[in-house]
Amino acid sequence: MQFRVAILGCGTVGGGVARILLEQRDALRERAGQDIQLARIVDLFPEQSSRRHGLPRELYAGAGADLTQQQADAEIQRILEDPSIDLVVETIGGSGAAILATTRGTLEHGKHLVTANKALLAKHGEELLGTARKHGKGIGFEAAVSAAIPIIKVLNECLTGDEIQSISGIMNGTSNYILSKMASDAQSFDAALRDAQAKGYAEADPTLDINGGDAGHKLTLVLRLAFGLDVEFEDLPRRGIDTVTAGDVAFAHEMHGVIKLICHAQRVGDSVHAAVTPMIVKRTNLLSKIDGATNAIRVIGRYAGEIVLIGQGAGSLETGSAIVSDIVFLARHGEHALPRPVATGFRLRPLGELRLPYHIVFETADMPGMTGIVATAIGRQDINIDTVSHNRHEVDHAEFAIATMPCTRSQVERAVKDIQGNHPGSLLSEPRVLPILV
Amino acid sequence: MQFRVAILGCGTVGGGVARILLEQRDALRERAGQDIQLARIVDLFPEQSSRRHGLPRELYAGAGADLTQQQADAEIQRILEDPSIDLVVETIGGSGAAILATTRGTLEHGKHLVTANKALLAKHGEELLGTARKHGKGIGFEAAVSAAIPIIKVLNECLTGDEIQSISGIMNGTSNYILSKMASDAQSFDAALRDAQAKGYAEADPTLDINGGDAGHKLTLVLRLAFGLDVEFEDLPRRGIDTVTAGDVAFAHEMHGVIKLICHAQRVGDSVHAAVTPMIVKRTNLLSKIDGATNAIRVIGRYAGEIVLIGQGAGSLETGSAIVSDIVFLARHGEHALPRPVATGFRLRPLGELRLPYHIVFETADMPGMTGIVATAIGRQDINIDTVSHNRHEVDHAEFAIATMPCTRSQVERAVKDIQGNHPGSLLSEPRVLPILV
Repeated sequence: MQFRVAILGCGTVGGGVARILLEQRDALRERAGQDIQLARIVDLFPEQSSRRHGLPRELYAGAGADLTQQQADAEIQRILEDPSIDLVVETIGGSGAAILATTRGTLEHGKHLVTANKALLAKHGEELLGTARKHGKGIGFEAAVSAAIPIIKVLNECLTGDEIQSISGIMNGTSNYILSKMASDAQSFDAALRDAQAKGYAEADPTLDINGGDAGHKLTLVLRLAFGLDVEFEDLPRRGIDTVTAGDVAFAHEMHGVIKLICHAQRVGDSVHAAVTPMIVKRTNLLSKIDGATNAIRVIGRYAGEIVLIGQGAGSLETGSAIVSDIVFLARHGEHALPRPVATGFRLRPLGELRLPYHIVFETADMPGMTGIVATAIGRQDINIDTVSHNRHEVDHAEFAIATMPCTRSQVERAVKDIQGNHPGSLLSEPRVLPILV
Repeated sequence: MQFRVAILGCGTVGGGVARILLEQRDALRERAGQDIQLARIVDLFPEQSSRRHGLPRELYAGAGADLTQQQADAEIQRILEDPSIDLVVETIGGSGAAILATTRGTLEHGKHLVTANKALLAKHGEELLGTARKHGKGIGFEAAVSAAIPIIKVLNECLTGDEIQSISGIMNGTSNYILSKMASDAQSFDAALRDAQAKGYAEADPTLDINGGDAGHKLTLVLRLAFGLDVEFEDLPRRGIDTVTAGDVAFAHEMHGVIKLICHAQRVGDSVHAAVTPMIVKRTNLLSKIDGATNAIRVIGRYAGEIVLIGQGAGSLETGSAIVSDIVFLARHGEHALPRPVATGFRLRPLGELRLPYHIVFETADMPGMTGIVATAIGRQDINIDTVSHNRHEVDHAEFAIATMPCTRSQVERAVKDIQGNHPGSLLSEPRVLPILV
């Protein structure tokens, strides 16, 4: 039996998929119970793509010649209408009308869809899942979150007997690489970013990586699977790493922690508190040990307890491996592969309402009494102090960090207002506040 | 639609399953698309079991009264013959004829089987899978290997697009607890074992945990899933932790490593080198950081690279969570849930044939020249030395450790024979050899 696959877009990820499908054809036949045949590739630049990935030119639509966008669109349409194609891999990217039409059309024409496109799924996931259900087809998107880490199937197929309490993940490798460099080489944010760009870990335009947008797309998908929460991407609180300073990194180190960009979601009753934010991760937490471009996700189940998954979050073959696994899963399970709609009625709430320990860096005048003023104000808001780290005394100002016991963000804000109101001029800048992940 | 489940044996694990099925019934209905009903429990001691797990007595066969073995057997037979039961959870344990008959009978009567019984599956897995295929039913055994870590589905359903190169796992929590105690508290093996027994991490008879038998059962299952290798449990080389000394642990520490009981399997061409053995795990490897009763498994895929999964390897609810997830999976995917038979034609080979770095502890006379004699003999076998750690000088003997660069076990053995032959009496005992996991 043949199971015919077309790949739309054969760049870094699509090329990895094609290579694995060709190299592993015999093994995949055994595992899928069907011969998974790479039937067609559509790419604007077949010569370049085939050379880069070592793929035969004859697999490319248009006889291997470069295509105009219009020609490529026509080839894609031909694939969607070809009844012999069972599954389409979308590795074009983007989240606009054209790619939505292509992916929706794939399902409407009765084909399974596999995609790594987190932006598309974060925006249009519900609609695409609905279309898939209507047409009895599946959508595989294992590669959309932390590439090689099988978090999608772990949530959809493995932890289904449990009740998930929280998820905390390092899901953006670029941010993690930059933060790791800032910590290990005491680099500034700008220097670490340039290093990441030089090494190919960051794009020329790294905006979505460093502002938490990419991580936010992933957390949006995870919230849907883990908590049945249909979140608008725009509603998800996001803060990137672009505000993290070398000083914050140094204070974190003294507090036995490291700064990581964390996708965090925590259930309390019928609420799910979620955000993308830099956090201080304590050294006792395994996530603190994940350096470079590696991703890691901690899931806490009511029954299973803590489960941690670690792996590569990007890369041609790493992402390709996840996509080909999705193809096998769809060939084996067909329409059973679709995650069931789960209507939990949970509500998204701000992370700041949760009681969390906080790490606060104060920049003050360098004069006796400042620690007392700050500590007193914090105590007046009923916040217990865990640690005070006092290590920057310059000529004209001092910096020190306070780690609190669990409290809400608004308690912290009231304490800061108290200081600013009662001791005007004592704080030289707005305190920098990060939640702590234990 | 109803999906009716019976539990055979309601002790630690069965009780956890029952509790989760009752507590999560609404959520499970959403996820499985069917109402998963706990229909019947068979246990010899319903009063004790129901009190311990907070379960209603009326769920127990025999009207909640204690059963003789004969009565229990009759109740089990009645369940197997009851066409309204869709799935049987076997949490009785053992690998003898009776439990084989019960599990085989479950499948023959057209019911799905879920079990955590690694000993049964290691011995009779092929037969049971064959029976399941014949009758179009599934077997779930996620809980059989590292309880809460979803390694079975990760291998069966997630990494199916990849080619697995190696698997290294801490799969026995008791051993890991004992080794962690020996490392952190400088305890002897016997003291750490007594501590583990006092804390409930080790059975009164800990034989299978400390001699590598339990880990061997798990590795047998993993070899089948990851490499299509049908290994007789007896053929799998196994060494436990009972020969590890406090001195070995101290030397490992000096070499920037820790001793862990590792289930290791590594593919080279058409061979899979596999064994259960204590190894020195270098501090740079995440497995070195897994302490106490926690389990961890590192999978290296040709395309995905390194993936590490960490979680609890035992416990009532932790194991129960995995079993209930299997129930949901079978309710959703039915006979599609069965792993496909994969005939790879791979052969099992001894780990010692692999080139691995080794850690060798020599006990020698305390006299000048010994390091040179030993190092020269090692060099003569073409083994490069990485580190020599020389830190035990007693009145009448010295101990030192050598870490080698990768070589085969027989090279090491030839070097030892060389020393013993050319310098009789210089080695006061047989050197202790452990492979190193980088």
